[in-house]
Amino acid sequence: MTNISRRAILAGTAAGATTLAAPALSQGRIEWLMVTSWPRNLPGPGITAQRIVDGIARASDGRLTIRLKSAGEIVPALQVFDAVATGTAQMAHTAALFWAGKTPVAPLFTAAPFGLTPLEHITWIDHGGGQALWDRLYEPFGIKPLMAGNTGFQMGGWFKREIESLDDIKGLKMRMPGLGGEVIRRLGATPVSLPPAEILPALKAGTIDAAEFLGPWSDLASGFWQAAKFYYWPGFHEPNGTGEALISLQAWNGLPDDLKAIVGQACAAENIWALGEAQWMNAISLEQLQVEKGVMLRAWPDDILAAAQKAADEVFDDLSQRGETEAAIIASYRAARAQLEPWSKVSQAALLAARDQG
Amino acid sequence: MTNISRRAILAGTAAGATTLAAPALSQGRIEWLMVTSWPRNLPGPGITAQRIVDGIARASDGRLTIRLKSAGEIVPALQVFDAVATGTAQMAHTAALFWAGKTPVAPLFTAAPFGLTPLEHITWIDHGGGQALWDRLYEPFGIKPLMAGNTGFQMGGWFKREIESLDDIKGLKMRMPGLGGEVIRRLGATPVSLPPAEILPALKAGTIDAAEFLGPWSDLASGFWQAAKFYYWPGFHEPNGTGEALISLQAWNGLPDDLKAIVGQACAAENIWALGEAQWMNAISLEQLQVEKGVMLRAWPDDILAAAQKAADEVFDDLSQRGETEAAIIASYRAARAQLEPWSKVSQAALLAARDQG
Repeated sequence: MTNISRRAILAGTAAGATTLAAPALSQGRIEWLMVTSWPRNLPGPGITAQRIVDGIARASDGRLTIRLKSAGEIVPALQVFDAVATGTAQMAHTAALFWAGKTPVAPLFTAAPFGLTPLEHITWIDHGGGQALWDRLYEPFGIKPLMAGNTGFQMGGWFKREIESLDDIKGLKMRMPGLGGEVIRRLGATPVSLPPAEILPALKAGTIDAAEFLGPWSDLASGFWQAAKFYYWPGFHEPNGTGEALISLQAWNGLPDDLKAIVGQACAAENIWALGEAQWMNAISLEQLQVEKGVMLRAWPDDILAAAQKAADEVFDDLSQRGETEAAIIASYRAARAQLEPWSKVSQAALLAARDQG
Repeated sequence: MTNISRRAILAGTAAGATTLAAPALSQGRIEWLMVTSWPRNLPGPGITAQRIVDGIARASDGRLTIRLKSAGEIVPALQVFDAVATGTAQMAHTAALFWAGKTPVAPLFTAAPFGLTPLEHITWIDHGGGQALWDRLYEPFGIKPLMAGNTGFQMGGWFKREIESLDDIKGLKMRMPGLGGEVIRRLGATPVSLPPAEILPALKAGTIDAAEFLGPWSDLASGFWQAAKFYYWPGFHEPNGTGEALISLQAWNGLPDDLKAIVGQACAAENIWALGEAQWMNAISLEQLQVEKGVMLRAWPDDILAAAQKAADEVFDDLSQRGETEAAIIASYRAARAQLEPWSKVSQAALLAARDQG
C-alpha cells in the first residue's frame, strides 16, 4: 500500500475499516485497539501483549486504555501489520519475522542465523543504530516499531534420528520458516512451512522428519517429544526472539509526551521481564524434557555449524543486494555483531565456561 | 537503627533532618529527594540515576518530581542507605555491595564471585524468588529495593606483570573490595580497599601491584592502562553490576497505584537500557584499550580459576551461617544458578562458541 492510499484511508476518503479507525477520545481519555498474532495468553508472546496493555492502563491511570484482540478475533494473525498500516488498529503485538513478504530484511529485527543474542540485539537497537533503521524501514507504511518483550534463545529443533554429520541432514524435510529455512535449504534439507498447530501431527505422521518451533518452554507444552526424541543445540537459526509492537504513526504522534513515555517505558520494561521469564521457564522445561520425557539433548556436529554459518553469511549478502535500506541494515547488523563479539567472548562466554568447570 | 527510632524520626518526634523529611505535596504533586553514591553524571550509574529521575517526571507529567543530589551534596556516598532509612531522603541510587556492614549478604544483590550473569541475575530477581528475599532483607530498615540499571560484566583487573599461575598471585597487593576481595585473600593475595580516585596513583606509586575497578568503559576513562598493561578476563569476582534503587517504604506505600507503576516501569526500563549501554561502551572501549593504549588482554590461568571458584563456594558457605535470612538468600541464589546454568550453556555459551569459529 502506498503512503497516499494509506493517508486517504486514515482521512476517511477511501473505503476502509473506518468505524474502527478513529480512536475513542473523551475527557482526555484515549482508547486504542491492539491486534496480535497470538492466541490470547499464549505462553510467551500472548502473555506479553496482555502485560503491556495492563501496564499502560495502570501507569496512565486509565487515560490510555487498549482493547486487546487476539489472532483471528478481528484480523488473522498475519494481517496485523496491514491492520495498523490502514488504521484498523492503532497498535499490534507481533514479530518482525512475519513481514519478509513486505520487506525482505524485516526478519532481522526478530533474529538472524548466527546473529545477535538477546542482550546483544537489544544493545544494537538501543545503542548501535538499530532503532533508527527499523523506523526507516517501517515509516513508508506509517508504522512506528518498538521492541516489546523477548522469547529469548530458541533450540535447534527436534529430530527423529540422530544427526551425526552434514550428510545426515541432506534430504530431510524440516519445519523451519524464514531465514533459518533458507539456511537449511542451502545445506541440502527441505524447509517446510507449517503453522504451529500442524507441526506435531506432521511429525507423528512422518510428513516431516524434523521440526523447530521455539524454546523448551513452548516445545514442552507443544508435545513434540511425543514424536521425536533428539533435541539439538544451539538454535543457530534464531538466537533471539524480539517481540514487536507496531504503532500507527498517526496515533503515536497524537499522544501527549507523558503517554508516549508511558508506552515506551511499558514496552522497555516488558523486554527484560519477558526475557527473564523465558530464561526461567526454558531452564525449568529443559530439565523436565530430559528427566520426565526422556528427551536426548545433542550438540550440532561441527561440520553442520560451519556449513550453516557460511550459508547464513550468503543469505546476508543476498539480502543486502535488495535495496539501499536493506544494505544499510545488513551493514549495521554485521558491524554491531563484530563490535560486540570480542566483549561477549571475554565476559559472558568466559564466565560461563569457567563456572561450568566448577 | 531500630524500626522504632526510624518511625519516631519520620513522625518528627525525634531529632532528625525533619526539614528535608516531608515530601512536598501540593495539588496532587509529590516531590522526592534522591541521594546517590555517585558523582553527578558518572558514566554508568550516575547517568542511570539522572535518567530514572527524568523518566519518572516525564511519564507522570510532573506529578512525581525527584530532586537528584549526588554523592556528598547532602550525604556522603556511603550514607545513602541511612538517609533513606531515616527519612532524610525518599529515594537513593546506589549498589547493594556497599551494605555488607549492615547485613553481610547484601553484596549478592549486586553480584557474587562465579555468580549469576546480568541476564541470569535479573531472571532470579524477577522470576526466581530474588525480589521477595531482597524485600525481606531491607524491610527491617524501612526500605524497598528495586533493580535500577546495570553496569554489566566487570573485567578481572589490571596487573603490572603477567600472571601465569596461582603462585604469581600469592603475596600481591590488589585493590579489590567486597566478596571478590575475600576470594583473592583466600588465594594468598592481599586485598586493598581504595576509593576510585586513589587507585591510579597507588598503582603508579607501586603501593599496590594490581587493581580492579569496573569494565573497559570506566577503566579506559580512569586511565589504569597508564600504570599496568595486563588486563585479565573474565571478571569472575563480579560478573554482574545491578544498580540499586532504595525507596523509603513509607514514601512508597503513600504513592497512588499509577505512580507506583510509573516508578516500577522507569526502573525496569533502565535495567535494560543501561545494560545495553554498558555492553556497547565496554565493547568499544575494549577495542580502544588494545589498539590505542597497547593493553594486553590475558585469560586467567586455569589453576587460578579453579582455586577462586572453590574459595567463592567457601565464602558462600560462611555467609549462609550468618542467620536465617542469609541462609535462605544463599540457598535461593545457588538454586537459581544451578537451574539456569544448563540452559545458559546450550543457548548463550554454545551460540557464542559456534559464532566465534566463523
